[in-house]
Amino acid sequence: MNLKDRINQTLIDVPDFPKPGILFKDITPLFKDPELIRDMIASANELLTPLKVDVIVGLESRGFPLGCSIAMGMNIPFVMVRKKGKLPRATYQVSYDLEYGQATVELQKDDILPGQRVYIHDDLLATGGTAAAAAKLIEMAGGTVVGFGFILTLDFLNGKEKLIQFNAPIHTFAAI
Amino acid sequence: MNLKDRINQTLIDVPDFPKPGILFKDITPLFKDPELIRDMIASANELLTPLKVDVIVGLESRGFPLGCSIAMGMNIPFVMVRKKGKLPRATYQVSYDLEYGQATVELQKDDILPGQRVYIHDDLLATGGTAAAAAKLIEMAGGTVVGFGFILTLDFLNGKEKLIQFNAPIHTFAAI
Repeated sequence: MNLKDRINQTLIDVPDFPKPGILFKDITPLFKDPELIRDMIASANELLTPLKVDVIVGLESRGFPLGCSIAMGMNIPFVMVRKKGKLPRATYQVSYDLEYGQATVELQKDDILPGQRVYIHDDLLATGGTAAAAAKLIEMAGGTVVGFGFILTLDFLNGKEKLIQFNAPIHTFAAI
Repeated sequence: MNLKDRINQTLIDVPDFPKPGILFKDITPLFKDPELIRDMIASANELLTPLKVDVIVGLESRGFPLGCSIAMGMNIPFVMVRKKGKLPRATYQVSYDLEYGQATVELQKDDILPGQRVYIHDDLLATGGTAAAAAKLIEMAGGTVVGFGFILTLDFLNGKEKLIQFNAPIHTFAAI
């Protein structure tokens, strides 16, 4: 079975989470299958090597486990973009609209150096708001976004359209 | 230089975060040094192998990157304990006291199987409240806590005392 099918068979559908009418895709079962995660890390390594990635940025918090594991497998730094108020040192901040209200994400100013080639990883590409905000943070730090990677993309939410402005490839292990 | 000294030299002290009078130890610089993280993973692997660990549990959210990387290095499952309301399926819940108010952490019921030997990882052992709550979650699921691992322990907060009840070794890469 190919990697995409293995991932899709492992994800668990949870109806009505976080609210009625939403079919939530639970990614946590993937991490209970270390062979699957190792194959995902190896696949990411192949995709990322030609992009000459200097740093992987993981988005809080479900982008942390696989993002870090991919970075360590490639022997490159792992940097965390976090929700507002969590990072202790001086940060860049970007706010973006949610369905109701706004969210703000932060990047510590010295975590990305000017000219660094940055790959952004998160578990899920939905509307693309968080990933686009993270990409703006990278650019504020003088870095270049050379790619986006997601475990799962919800194609019907058109998140890719929000990321086109960054002219970087968008990888996804699985899509629905 | 030994691993502990390398870690201590890499951590960044941030005065007055998250509030005046607190000297925060920023662990994020560790993840920008992949050689250091790989040496920490190798060291954890040596410590954990004799414990016959079946599963590593990481605590949200700074316990996710290294916890997952250690688990994948050992080819064993990685499970996330998260703050209330984040996990989509049926959970066990444990609440514990904070300086002001309470916090609740959750574990999905099928994420730990009865009899599994579980190692709990987090970045920081401070008062021990979160780690003790996580250990109670493991026990509610029928698992056995066979160890705790932290990047850093703040010895003056006596967190180890709160973990003694679980009769498991407590590892820390660095302590102040």
